[in-house]
Amino acid sequence: MEQLDKQQLNEDSCHTGSDRKSHHSDKTKSNLVSRLNRIEGQIRGVKGLIEKDTYCDDVLNQIAAIQSALNGVGKLLLEHHMNSCVIERIQEGDNEVIKELMITINKLMK
Amino acid sequence: MEQLDKQQLNEDSCHTGSDRKSHHSDKTKSNLVSRLNRIEGQIRGVKGLIEKDTYCDDVLNQIAAIQSALNGVGKLLLEHHMNSCVIERIQEGDNEVIKELMITINKLMK
Amino acid sequence: MEQLDKQQLNEDSCHTGSDRKSHHSDKTKSNLVSRLNRIEGQIRGVKGLIEKDTYCDDVLNQIAAIQSALNGVGKLLLEHHMNSCVIERIQEGDNEVIKELMITINKLMK
Amino acid sequence: MEQLDKQQLNEDSCHTGSDRKSHHSDKTKSNLVSRLNRIEGQIRGVKGLIEKDTYCDDVLNQIAAIQSALNGVGKLLLEHHMNSCVIERIQEGDNEVIKELMITINKLMK
Repeated sequence: MEQLDKQQLNEDSCHTGSDRKSHHSDKTKSNLVSRLNRIEGQIRGVKGLIEKDTYCDDVLNQIAAIQSALNGVGKLLLEHHMNSCVIERIQEGDNEVIKELMITINKLMK
Repeated sequence: MEQLDKQQLNEDSCHTGSDRKSHHSDKTKSNLVSRLNRIEGQIRGVKGLIEKDTYCDDVLNQIAAIQSALNGVGKLLLEHHMNSCVIERIQEGDNEVIKELMITINKLMK
Repeated sequence: MEQLDKQQLNEDSCHTGSDRKSHHSDKTKSNLVSRLNRIEGQIRGVKGLIEKDTYCDDVLNQIAAIQSALNGVGKLLLEHHMNSCVIERIQEGDNEVIKELMITINKLMK
Repeated sequence: MEQLDKQQLNEDSCHTGSDRKSHHSDKTKSNLVSRLNRIEGQIRGVKGLIEKDTYCDDVLNQIAAIQSALNGVGKLLLEHHMNSCVIERIQEGDNEVIKELMITINKLMK
Protein backbone atom coordinates (compact mmCIF):
# COMPACT_ATOMS: atom_id res chain seq x y z
CA MET A 1 0.00 0.00 0.00
CA GLU A 2 2.76 2.40 0.99
CA GLN A 3 4.35 1.32 -2.28
CA LEU A 4 1.26 2.40 -4.19
CA ASP A 5 1.15 5.80 -2.54
CA LYS A 6 4.78 6.33 -3.36
CA GLN A 7 4.03 5.55 -6.96
CA GLN A 8 1.36 8.13 -7.13
CA LEU A 9 3.87 10.71 -5.96
CA ASN A 10 6.70 9.46 -8.10
CA GLU A 11 5.65 8.68 -11.64
CA ASP A 12 9.06 7.25 -12.56
CA SER A 13 9.25 4.20 -10.37
CA CYS A 14 10.24 0.61 -10.12
CA HIS A 15 8.23 -2.52 -9.42
CA THR A 16 10.27 -5.29 -7.99
CA GLY A 17 7.53 -7.81 -7.48
CA SER A 18 7.06 -11.11 -9.25
CA ASP A 19 7.09 -9.26 -12.54
CA ARG A 20 9.69 -6.57 -12.34
CA LYS A 21 8.61 -3.47 -14.22
CA SER A 22 9.88 0.05 -14.69
CA HIS A 23 7.47 2.92 -14.72
CA HIS A 24 8.65 5.80 -16.81
CA SER A 25 6.69 9.00 -16.73
CA ASP A 26 4.99 9.82 -20.03
CA LYS A 27 7.57 12.54 -20.58
CA THR A 28 10.51 10.16 -20.10
CA LYS A 29 8.87 7.58 -22.33
CA SER A 30 8.18 9.96 -25.19
CA ASN A 31 11.73 11.37 -24.91
CA LEU A 32 13.21 7.85 -25.15
CA VAL A 33 10.87 6.77 -27.95
CA SER A 34 11.54 9.85 -30.06
CA ARG A 35 15.30 9.37 -29.65
CA LEU A 36 14.93 5.73 -30.73
CA ASN A 37 12.80 6.75 -33.72
CA ARG A 38 15.55 9.11 -34.80
CA ILE A 39 18.16 6.35 -34.41
CA GLU A 40 15.99 3.96 -36.43
CA GLY A 41 15.87 6.57 -39.19
CA GLN A 42 19.65 6.96 -39.03
CA ILE A 43 20.11 3.18 -39.38
CA ARG A 44 17.83 3.17 -42.41
CA GLY A 45 19.83 6.11 -43.75
CA VAL A 46 23.09 4.17 -43.46
CA LYS A 47 21.55 1.23 -45.34
CA GLY A 48 20.64 3.63 -48.15
CA LEU A 49 24.18 5.05 -48.18
CA ILE A 50 25.66 1.57 -48.50
CA GLU A 51 23.27 0.65 -51.30
CA LYS A 52 24.23 3.83 -53.16
CA ASP A 53 27.97 3.07 -52.72
CA THR A 54 28.54 6.21 -50.69
CA TYR A 55 32.18 6.83 -49.81
CA CYS A 56 32.99 4.66 -46.73
CA ASP A 57 34.47 7.47 -44.72
CA ASP A 58 31.18 9.38 -44.91
CA VAL A 59 29.27 6.26 -43.84
CA LEU A 60 31.68 5.71 -40.92
CA ASN A 61 30.98 9.24 -39.75
CA GLN A 62 27.26 8.46 -39.78
CA ILE A 63 27.92 5.33 -37.73
CA ALA A 64 29.92 7.32 -35.18
CA ALA A 65 26.92 9.68 -34.90
CA ILE A 66 24.54 6.77 -34.31
CA GLN A 67 26.83 5.30 -31.65
CA SER A 68 26.81 8.62 -29.89
CA ALA A 69 23.00 8.89 -30.09
CA LEU A 70 22.61 5.34 -28.77
CA ASN A 71 25.02 6.13 -25.96
CA GLY A 72 22.77 9.05 -25.09
CA VAL A 73 19.75 6.74 -24.79
CA GLY A 74 21.79 4.38 -22.60
CA LYS A 75 22.85 7.19 -20.28
CA LEU A 76 19.31 8.53 -20.01
CA LEU A 77 17.93 5.09 -19.16
CA LEU A 78 20.74 4.43 -16.70
CA GLU A 79 20.12 7.73 -14.95
CA HIS A 80 16.41 7.02 -14.82
CA HIS A 81 17.08 3.50 -13.51
CA MET A 82 19.33 4.78 -10.74
CA ASN A 83 16.89 7.48 -9.72
CA SER A 84 14.02 5.04 -9.47
CA CYS A 85 14.76 1.33 -9.08
CA VAL A 86 18.23 1.58 -7.57
CA ILE A 87 17.21 4.09 -4.91
CA GLU A 88 13.95 2.26 -4.13
CA ARG A 89 15.48 -1.15 -3.83
CA ILE A 90 18.35 0.06 -1.63
CA GLN A 91 15.84 1.86 0.59
CA GLU A 92 13.96 -1.44 0.85
CA GLY A 93 17.22 -3.09 1.93
CA ASP A 94 17.67 -5.01 -1.33
CA ASN A 95 21.33 -4.36 -2.14
CA GLU A 96 21.41 -7.04 -4.84
CA VAL A 97 20.44 -4.23 -7.22
CA ILE A 98 24.05 -2.99 -7.05
CA LYS A 99 25.49 -6.31 -8.20
CA GLU A 100 23.06 -6.32 -11.11
CA LEU A 101 23.85 -2.68 -11.90
CA MET A 102 27.61 -3.31 -11.99
CA ILE A 103 27.13 -6.13 -14.52
CA THR A 104 25.12 -3.79 -16.74
CA ILE A 105 27.58 -0.89 -16.40
CA ASN A 106 30.45 -3.22 -17.28
CA LYS A 107 28.63 -4.15 -20.49
CA LEU A 108 27.95 -0.50 -21.32
CA MET A 109 31.61 0.43 -20.59
CA LYS A 110 32.70 -2.65 -22.62
CA MET B 1 44.77 1.08 -67.51
CA GLU B 2 46.48 -1.06 -64.89
CA GLN B 3 44.20 0.70 -62.41
CA LEU B 4 41.13 -0.31 -64.39
CA ASP B 5 42.21 -3.92 -64.62
CA LYS B 6 42.77 -4.01 -60.90
CA GLN B 7 39.25 -2.76 -60.37
CA GLN B 8 37.84 -5.49 -62.48
CA LEU B 9 39.67 -8.03 -60.36
CA ASN B 10 38.87 -6.36 -57.10
CA GLU B 11 35.17 -5.76 -56.75
CA ASP B 12 35.59 -3.84 -53.50
CA SER B 13 37.15 -0.63 -54.68
CA CYS B 14 37.21 3.10 -54.29
CA HIS B 15 36.51 5.87 -56.76
CA THR B 16 38.14 9.11 -55.88
CA GLY B 17 36.99 11.17 -58.80
CA SER B 18 34.73 14.20 -58.71
CA ASP B 19 32.10 12.11 -56.98
CA ARG B 20 33.86 9.89 -54.49
CA LYS B 21 32.21 6.52 -54.30
CA SER B 22 32.92 3.22 -52.60
CA HIS B 23 32.29 0.01 -54.46
CA HIS B 24 31.38 -2.83 -52.17
CA SER B 25 31.10 -6.29 -53.64
CA ASP B 26 27.56 -7.68 -53.56
CA LYS B 27 28.63 -10.00 -50.76
CA THR B 28 29.97 -7.15 -48.60
CA LYS B 29 26.88 -5.10 -49.30
CA SER B 30 24.42 -7.82 -48.37
CA ASN B 31 26.45 -8.61 -45.22
CA LEU B 32 26.31 -4.96 -44.13
CA VAL B 33 22.64 -4.53 -45.04
CA SER B 34 21.55 -7.67 -43.20
CA ARG B 35 23.48 -6.57 -40.09
CA LEU B 36 21.79 -3.16 -40.29
CA ASN B 37 18.38 -4.78 -40.72
CA ARG B 38 18.98 -6.77 -37.56
CA ILE B 39 20.04 -3.61 -35.70
CA GLU B 40 16.93 -1.80 -36.94
CA GLY B 41 14.85 -4.65 -35.54
CA GLN B 42 16.70 -4.42 -32.22
CA ILE B 43 16.00 -0.68 -32.01
CA ARG B 44 12.30 -1.31 -32.67
CA GLY B 45 12.45 -4.01 -29.99
CA VAL B 46 13.84 -1.56 -27.43
CA LYS B 47 11.05 0.90 -28.22
CA GLY B 48 8.55 -1.87 -27.53
CA LEU B 49 10.29 -2.71 -24.23
CA ILE B 50 10.09 0.91 -23.11
CA GLU B 51 6.44 1.15 -24.06
CA LYS B 52 5.69 -2.00 -22.05
CA ASP B 53 7.59 -0.63 -19.01
CA THR B 54 10.15 -3.42 -19.12
CA TYR B 55 12.61 -3.36 -16.24
CA CYS B 56 15.35 -0.80 -17.13
CA ASP B 57 18.21 -3.13 -16.45
CA ASP B 58 16.90 -5.54 -19.10
CA VAL B 59 16.53 -2.68 -21.57
CA LEU B 60 20.07 -1.48 -20.82
CA ASN B 61 21.38 -4.96 -21.63
CA GLN B 62 19.60 -4.78 -24.98
CA ILE B 63 21.20 -1.40 -25.63
CA ALA B 64 24.64 -2.79 -24.84
CA ALA B 65 23.96 -5.57 -27.40
CA ILE B 66 22.99 -3.01 -30.06
CA GLN B 67 26.11 -0.95 -29.36
CA SER B 68 28.19 -4.04 -29.87
CA ALA B 69 26.38 -4.94 -33.13
CA LEU B 70 26.81 -1.38 -34.41
CA ASN B 71 30.49 -1.49 -33.48
CA GLY B 72 30.74 -4.63 -35.59
CA VAL B 73 29.32 -2.80 -38.61
CA GLY B 74 31.77 0.05 -38.02
CA LYS B 75 34.75 -2.31 -37.89
CA LEU B 76 33.65 -4.17 -41.02
CA LEU B 77 33.24 -0.92 -42.94
CA LEU B 78 36.55 0.42 -41.63
CA GLU B 79 38.35 -2.75 -42.68
CA HIS B 80 36.73 -2.60 -46.09
CA HIS B 81 37.62 1.08 -46.42
CA MET B 82 41.27 0.44 -45.56
CA ASN B 83 41.54 -2.50 -47.94
CA SER B 84 40.11 -0.51 -50.82
CA CYS B 85 40.18 3.28 -50.70
CA VAL B 86 43.09 3.73 -48.29
CA ILE B 87 45.39 1.36 -50.16
CA GLU B 88 44.38 2.72 -53.57
CA ARG B 89 44.77 6.36 -52.68
CA ILE B 90 48.17 5.82 -51.05
CA GLN B 91 49.31 3.89 -54.11
CA GLU B 92 48.21 6.87 -56.19
CA GLY B 93 50.34 9.09 -53.95
CA ASP B 94 47.34 10.75 -52.27
CA ASN B 95 48.31 10.58 -48.58
CA GLU B 96 45.53 12.96 -47.57
CA VAL B 97 43.45 9.82 -47.04
CA ILE B 98 45.37 9.17 -43.80
CA LYS B 99 44.45 12.54 -42.32
CA GLU B 100 40.80 11.90 -43.14
CA LEU B 101 41.03 8.36 -41.74
CA MET B 102 42.49 9.56 -38.43
CA ILE B 103 39.60 12.02 -37.99
CA THR B 104 37.13 9.18 -38.53
CA ILE B 105 38.96 6.73 -36.23
CA ASN B 106 39.07 9.40 -33.53
CA LYS B 107 35.29 9.70 -33.76
CA LEU B 108 34.83 5.94 -33.64
CA MET B 109 37.22 5.68 -30.63
CA LYS B 110 35.40 8.69 -29.10
CA MET C 1 24.90 4.12 16.76
CA GLU C 2 23.60 1.47 14.42
CA GLN C 3 25.65 3.24 11.77
CA LEU C 4 28.81 2.91 13.85
CA ASP C 5 28.27 -0.78 14.47
CA LYS C 6 27.80 -1.30 10.79
CA GLN C 7 31.09 0.37 10.14
CA GLN C 8 32.87 -1.88 12.55
CA LEU C 9 31.49 -4.86 10.69
CA ASN C 10 32.04 -3.44 7.26
CA GLU C 11 35.60 -2.30 6.78
CA ASP C 12 34.85 -0.88 3.33
CA SER C 13 32.80 2.16 4.17
CA CYS C 14 32.15 5.76 3.38
CA HIS C 15 32.37 8.86 5.56
CA THR C 16 30.27 11.68 4.34
CA GLY C 17 31.04 14.21 7.02
CA SER C 18 32.86 17.50 6.61
CA ASP C 19 35.78 15.62 5.09
CA ARG C 20 34.39 12.92 2.85
CA LYS C 21 36.55 9.85 2.99
CA SER C 22 36.39 6.33 1.64
CA HIS C 23 37.48 3.47 3.80
CA HIS C 24 38.84 0.59 1.82
CA SER C 25 39.63 -2.61 3.64
CA ASP C 26 43.34 -3.45 3.68
CA LYS C 27 42.66 -6.19 1.16
CA THR C 28 40.90 -3.83 -1.28
CA LYS C 29 43.65 -1.25 -0.83
CA SER C 30 46.50 -3.65 -1.50
CA ASN C 31 44.65 -5.07 -4.51
CA LEU C 32 44.23 -1.57 -5.98
CA VAL C 33 47.78 -0.49 -5.16
CA SER C 34 49.35 -3.59 -6.66
CA ARG C 35 47.31 -3.13 -9.86
CA LEU C 36 48.44 0.49 -10.04
CA ASN C 37 52.07 -0.53 -9.46
CA ARG C 38 51.80 -2.90 -12.38
CA ILE C 39 50.29 -0.16 -14.56
CA GLU C 40 53.07 2.23 -13.54
CA GLY C 41 55.59 -0.39 -14.66
CA GLN C 42 53.74 -0.79 -17.97
CA ILE C 43 53.86 2.97 -18.57
CA ARG C 44 57.61 2.99 -17.89
CA GLY C 45 57.90 0.03 -20.27
CA VAL C 46 56.17 1.95 -23.05
CA LYS C 47 58.56 4.89 -22.54
CA GLY C 48 61.46 2.48 -22.98
CA LEU C 49 59.89 1.04 -26.14
CA ILE C 50 59.53 4.51 -27.63
CA GLU C 51 63.10 5.43 -26.78
CA LYS C 52 64.33 2.23 -28.44
CA ASP C 53 62.27 2.98 -31.59
CA THR C 54 60.17 -0.16 -31.16
CA TYR C 55 57.75 -0.79 -34.01
CA CYS C 56 54.66 1.40 -33.36
CA ASP C 57 52.19 -1.39 -33.77
CA ASP C 58 53.81 -3.30 -30.90
CA VAL C 59 53.73 -0.17 -28.74
CA LEU C 60 50.05 0.38 -29.58
CA ASN C 61 49.29 -3.14 -28.41
CA GLN C 62 50.99 -2.35 -25.10
CA ILE C 63 48.89 0.80 -24.78
CA ALA C 64 45.69 -1.20 -25.42
CA ALA C 65 46.78 -3.53 -22.60
CA ILE C 66 47.34 -0.59 -20.21
CA GLN C 67 43.93 0.87 -21.09
CA SER C 68 42.35 -2.44 -20.25
CA ALA C 69 44.25 -2.70 -16.93
CA LEU C 70 43.26 0.87 -16.02
CA ASN C 71 39.66 0.10 -16.92
CA GLY C 72 39.87 -2.81 -14.48
CA VAL C 73 40.98 -0.47 -11.67
CA GLY C 74 38.12 1.89 -12.54
CA LYS C 75 35.55 -0.90 -12.42
CA LEU C 76 36.89 -2.23 -9.12
CA LEU C 77 36.77 1.21 -7.54
CA LEU C 78 33.31 1.88 -8.94
CA GLU C 79 32.01 -1.41 -7.57
CA HIS C 80 33.56 -0.66 -4.20
CA HIS C 81 32.11 2.85 -4.25
CA MET C 82 28.61 1.58 -5.00
CA ASN C 83 28.79 -1.09 -2.34
CA SER C 84 29.87 1.37 0.33
CA CYS C 85 29.20 5.07 -0.19
CA VAL C 86 26.29 4.82 -2.62
CA ILE C 87 24.35 2.33 -0.49
CA GLU C 88 25.12 4.17 2.75
CA ARG C 89 24.19 7.59 1.48
CA ILE C 90 20.93 6.38 -0.07
CA GLN C 91 20.07 4.61 3.17
CA GLU C 92 20.69 7.92 4.95
CA GLY C 93 18.26 9.56 2.51
CA ASP C 94 20.99 11.46 0.65
CA ASN C 95 20.07 10.78 -3.00
CA GLU C 96 22.46 13.44 -4.29
CA VAL C 97 25.02 10.62 -4.47
CA ILE C 98 23.24 9.36 -7.62
CA LYS C 99 23.64 12.66 -9.44
CA GLU C 100 27.33 12.67 -8.58
CA LEU C 101 27.67 9.01 -9.61
CA MET C 102 26.06 9.62 -13.02
CA ILE C 103 28.55 12.44 -13.73
CA THR C 104 31.41 10.07 -12.94
CA ILE C 105 30.00 7.16 -14.94
CA ASN C 106 29.50 9.48 -17.92
CA LYS C 107 33.19 10.37 -17.74
CA LEU C 108 34.22 6.72 -17.49
CA MET C 109 31.91 5.79 -20.41
CA LYS C 110 33.23 8.84 -22.32
CA MET D 1 69.91 3.03 -50.83
CA GLU D 2 66.81 4.89 -51.94
CA GLN D 3 65.37 3.77 -48.60
CA LEU D 4 68.23 5.44 -46.73
CA ASP D 5 67.86 8.70 -48.62
CA LYS D 6 64.19 8.73 -47.85
CA GLN D 7 64.99 8.31 -44.20
CA GLN D 8 67.25 11.28 -44.23
CA LEU D 9 64.40 13.35 -45.60
CA ASN D 10 61.74 11.86 -43.39
CA GLU D 11 62.86 11.57 -39.81
CA ASP D 12 59.66 9.78 -38.80
CA SER D 13 59.97 6.54 -40.67
CA CYS D 14 59.54 2.82 -40.51
CA HIS D 15 62.00 -0.03 -40.96
CA THR D 16 60.43 -3.21 -42.11
CA GLY D 17 63.54 -5.29 -42.36
CA SER D 18 64.48 -8.28 -40.24
CA ASP D 19 64.14 -6.11 -37.14
CA ARG D 20 61.16 -3.87 -37.60
CA LYS D 21 61.73 -0.48 -36.06
CA SER D 22 59.93 2.83 -35.94
CA HIS D 23 61.87 6.02 -36.23
CA HIS D 24 60.25 8.88 -34.44
CA SER D 25 61.68 12.34 -34.87
CA ASP D 26 63.22 13.76 -31.67
CA LYS D 27 60.24 16.08 -31.38
CA THR D 28 57.70 13.24 -31.59
CA LYS D 29 59.71 11.19 -29.12
CA SER D 30 59.98 13.91 -26.53
CA ASN D 31 56.27 14.72 -26.93
CA LEU D 32 55.35 11.08 -26.30
CA VAL D 33 57.81 10.64 -23.42
CA SER D 34 56.65 13.80 -21.64
CA ARG D 35 53.01 12.71 -21.97
CA LEU D 36 53.93 9.30 -20.53
CA ASN D 37 55.86 10.94 -17.68
CA ARG D 38 52.77 12.94 -16.82
CA ILE D 39 50.63 9.80 -16.90
CA GLU D 40 53.12 7.99 -14.67
CA GLY D 41 52.82 10.86 -12.19
CA GLN D 42 49.02 10.64 -12.36
CA ILE D 43 49.14 6.89 -11.62
CA ARG D 44 51.36 7.54 -8.60
CA GLY D 45 48.93 10.27 -7.55
CA VAL D 46 46.02 7.83 -7.63
CA LYS D 47 47.96 5.38 -5.46
CA GLY D 48 48.47 8.17 -2.94
CA LEU D 49 44.77 9.02 -3.03
CA ILE D 50 43.84 5.41 -2.33
CA GLU D 51 46.32 5.16 0.53
CA LYS D 52 44.88 8.33 2.07
CA ASP D 53 41.29 6.96 1.75
CA THR D 54 40.26 9.75 -0.60
CA TYR D 55 36.58 9.70 -1.52
CA CYS D 56 36.14 7.12 -4.35
CA ASP D 57 34.27 9.44 -6.61
CA ASP D 58 37.22 11.84 -6.66
CA VAL D 59 39.58 8.96 -7.41
CA LEU D 60 37.32 7.76 -10.23
CA ASN D 61 37.47 11.21 -11.77
CA GLN D 62 41.27 11.02 -11.70
CA ILE D 63 41.11 7.63 -13.40
CA ALA D 64 38.85 9.02 -16.14
CA ALA D 65 41.45 11.77 -16.69
CA ILE D 66 44.26 9.21 -16.99
CA GLN D 67 42.23 7.14 -19.47
CA SER D 68 41.76 10.22 -21.57
CA ALA D 69 45.49 11.10 -21.43
CA LEU D 70 46.44 7.53 -22.36
CA ASN D 71 43.95 7.63 -25.22
CA GLY D 72 45.74 10.77 -26.41
CA VAL D 73 49.07 8.93 -26.49
CA GLY D 74 47.43 6.07 -28.40
CA LYS D 75 45.98 8.41 -31.00
CA LEU D 76 49.28 10.26 -31.44
CA LEU D 77 51.17 7.00 -31.93
CA LEU D 78 48.52 5.66 -34.29
CA GLU D 79 48.64 8.82 -36.37
CA HIS D 80 52.42 8.67 -36.48
CA HIS D 81 52.31 4.98 -37.38
CA MET D 82 49.90 5.60 -40.26
CA ASN D 83 51.91 8.52 -41.58
CA SER D 84 55.13 6.55 -41.59
CA CYS D 85 54.97 2.74 -41.58
CA VAL D 86 51.51 2.30 -43.08
CA ILE D 87 52.17 4.65 -46.01
CA GLU D 88 55.67 3.26 -46.62
CA ARG D 89 54.66 -0.35 -46.55
CA ILE D 90 51.67 0.18 -48.85
CA GLN D 91 53.90 2.10 -51.26
CA GLU D 92 56.27 -0.90 -51.20
CA GLY D 93 53.29 -3.11 -52.07
CA ASP D 94 53.14 -4.75 -48.63
CA ASN D 95 49.40 -4.57 -47.85
CA GLU D 96 49.72 -6.94 -44.89
CA VAL D 97 50.22 -3.78 -42.82
CA ILE D 98 46.46 -3.13 -43.09
CA LYS D 99 45.54 -6.50 -41.58
CA GLU D 100 47.93 -5.85 -38.70
CA LEU D 101 46.57 -2.30 -38.29
CA MET D 102 42.95 -3.49 -38.11
CA ILE D 103 43.86 -5.93 -35.30
CA THR D 104 45.45 -3.08 -33.36
CA ILE D 105 42.59 -0.63 -33.97
CA ASN D 106 40.10 -3.29 -32.85
CA LYS D 107 42.01 -3.58 -29.57
CA LEU D 108 42.10 0.19 -29.12
CA MET D 109 38.35 0.45 -29.94
CA LYS D 110 37.73 -2.54 -27.64
